[in-house]
Amino acid sequence: MASSETGGRVFADLMRLAEVVEPGQPGWTRRVFSAEYLRSRELVWELMESAGLEVRRDPAGNLIGTLEGTDAQLPALILGSHTDTVAGGGRFDGPCGVMAAIEVVRRINERGGRPRRTIWVVDFLGEEPNDFGISCVGSRAVAGHLSPEHLQLTDRSGRTLAEALAAVGGDPDRIGEACWPEGTASAYLELHVEQGSRLEEAARGLAVVTAIAGIHRAEIRLEGRADHAGTTPMDRRSDALLAAAEVSLEVERLGRREGRGVATVGRLELEPNSPNVVAERAVLIAEYRSGDAVWLATTDDLLQEVVENAPARRGVRGSLAWLSREEPTICAEELRSVLLESAREIGEEPLELPSWAGHDAVQMAAVCPVAMLFVPSRGGRSHCPEEWTDPEQVEVGTRALVAAVTRLAV
Amino acid sequence: MASSETGGRVFADLMRLAEVVEPGQPGWTRRVFSAEYLRSRELVWELMESAGLEVRRDPAGNLIGTLEGTDAQLPALILGSHTDTVAGGGRFDGPCGVMAAIEVVRRINERGGRPRRTIWVVDFLGEEPNDFGISCVGSRAVAGHLSPEHLQLTDRSGRTLAEALAAVGGDPDRIGEACWPEGTASAYLELHVEQGSRLEEAARGLAVVTAIAGIHRAEIRLEGRADHAGTTPMDRRSDALLAAAEVSLEVERLGRREGRGVATVGRLELEPNSPNVVAERAVLIAEYRSGDAVWLATTDDLLQEVVENAPARRGVRGSLAWLSREEPTICAEELRSVLLESAREIGEEPLELPSWAGHDAVQMAAVCPVAMLFVPSRGGRSHCPEEWTDPEQVEVGTRALVAAVTRLAV
Repeated sequence: MASSETGGRVFADLMRLAEVVEPGQPGWTRRVFSAEYLRSRELVWELMESAGLEVRRDPAGNLIGTLEGTDAQLPALILGSHTDTVAGGGRFDGPCGVMAAIEVVRRINERGGRPRRTIWVVDFLGEEPNDFGISCVGSRAVAGHLSPEHLQLTDRSGRTLAEALAAVGGDPDRIGEACWPEGTASAYLELHVEQGSRLEEAARGLAVVTAIAGIHRAEIRLEGRADHAGTTPMDRRSDALLAAAEVSLEVERLGRREGRGVATVGRLELEPNSPNVVAERAVLIAEYRSGDAVWLATTDDLLQEVVENAPARRGVRGSLAWLSREEPTICAEELRSVLLESAREIGEEPLELPSWAGHDAVQMAAVCPVAMLFVPSRGGRSHCPEEWTDPEQVEVGTRALVAAVTRLAV
Repeated sequence: MASSETGGRVFADLMRLAEVVEPGQPGWTRRVFSAEYLRSRELVWELMESAGLEVRRDPAGNLIGTLEGTDAQLPALILGSHTDTVAGGGRFDGPCGVMAAIEVVRRINERGGRPRRTIWVVDFLGEEPNDFGISCVGSRAVAGHLSPEHLQLTDRSGRTLAEALAAVGGDPDRIGEACWPEGTASAYLELHVEQGSRLEEAARGLAVVTAIAGIHRAEIRLEGRADHAGTTPMDRRSDALLAAAEVSLEVERLGRREGRGVATVGRLELEPNSPNVVAERAVLIAEYRSGDAVWLATTDDLLQEVVENAPARRGVRGSLAWLSREEPTICAEELRSVLLESAREIGEEPLELPSWAGHDAVQMAAVCPVAMLFVPSRGGRSHCPEEWTDPEQVEVGTRALVAAVTRLAV
């Protein structure tokens, strides 16, 4: 089939998937435990099946499509990503890698002949952070990193992660069976949008990822005292909102340190959150990222100091709990070489870049060697409705992935 | 009836009312448009009726109980307060004044003989700020200050104030009829808990209020840009949460100015409020209070400057809309004298204090002369579950109110 006919298929699949979103939410919102996410994966299942994959859902809710290779002894080559989004997110972060992987299988089948190595295409459940405070739920389970404690985490309504998982087709009682035994996988490749603007600025179409930044995420609780906003003099208040303001600005300062990381407070909840009551409680999530493990560890210490000292000056009690501490993930040298050669084979000269965003590849690195390909993000925008990658750029990424799979599986 | 038998009735009524609260909310929460608020007012209605009042509900949802006087030509003496609470509030702020007013009527009836002047006991609808951004809904309507624009205000679900009002027994189409014509009322007296600790610190049981602080309330919108919290470098962000943090700390600084006021940010909403997305939008409410009209006007100007300048340094667009600008209310000299004499008549030497909290009396000042009595608040705590006034202190306030009503109505 001519590339002019096949070229738009991945993009068309992305646009079809983008039709299944949560009503009343901004952008293209399809959060992991929403009804729309569950429904959207019927489409993913269909696309996998019609590409010739044998599809199953594992106990972690991952969709796994298998293309049987001729040599059943060889560990499988894994291609994957995710199809859930953040609230108010876009159409590319995640789905791009799943749809491209499905297209790789289509092209192998259209070319005729089975590969020697079995290929699995995986749509991992819930890569984005959720109301339970963890990310990469599906790939964590595959790596054996989804603990019984994780399953007992609750969201604000008191529902457990186990209950939420069961509601989207998982089987929390058999979660251990989602973990892949050693020797299952030979390598993991993930195509993803860059979510930054370095490719665009360099006018390049592809990047081979060198390492994935580690992410530390802490929940900070600030306990002040609720008081009447009129009758309580300014110097007798224990205002949790003002303590949260100071902690947030300190987190920014930590993120600007040495230019080796980033730090963000994106979520902040207040109680009672009423205009005429001094805030009693603030709960915020601070997250910071770096490719440098030492920088991350130092930031842990500095943040702990901030939480102990800054709120206390206002009579507010600060405490901190780690939600996750992922160290940086180094992409496998040999796979990076394969991706570089594959890109050059299709006429592209890729950049080599670290990834500032976390990916399922981080969890998969515990299972097998991993590597990633980036395609450009317009204006570097991501996790927002404006997230965009041109159809031609998606096609370049897909072709590089086909070339790499050909080298690794055939 | 001996005072030992009647003394606990107001307190007992307060505890009965406190049983009707919103489930799953902290403290004693009975917000104005909740089902529980609607239900709680059946109890208020019953208590009014069994005290011998003729009860009606006006188009603004106010409950008005009438004790007919012998001289129908005289304007009525009005006693009132409110029975709604803030989220996570207490059992005294509001209900104390309504229950004491009902008890005044009981004691007049128990004493025998009708007063010359008609007495109205009013449970004003929704004194506390609500999701529509205004307070004193019922007393505003009585003063003719609830405009058609107010009725079209919407909450976050898109419901209008008119719809919400209709759902709690009001009749928004006839709201004009809730406004009292000139000559309806001779005076308005309100008993309330102090919500501060000045009475407690002075070991006094009563205060006569000199003036009620003016309250200005502004909604501040901060529009930044949603970006991926990993891939967006620190110096390319337009972070609405950090802008909100800076504005909140500036509001605190304004409130500390000259010791003549207080300023608070108690409410802050973020979008998308996700841990790994730079905040796109923050909406916060700044409110400040002072008995000094000049201080309030200067604060308006300084706040406007803060909103224009501080967020802009981060590439965040700030805008401000006034939700309300109540000027200070001066309590009527002649009524203050009556309250002072009444207090002394029952053996109390009252303090004279300004009120830092807003009250229905502020709206009523447009209708007739107003005055207020304060009873102590333990630890000065209010708008919180710990809000407390001893039964004996409630009784002292009730007796002073009885004495004042005797002077003004009999």
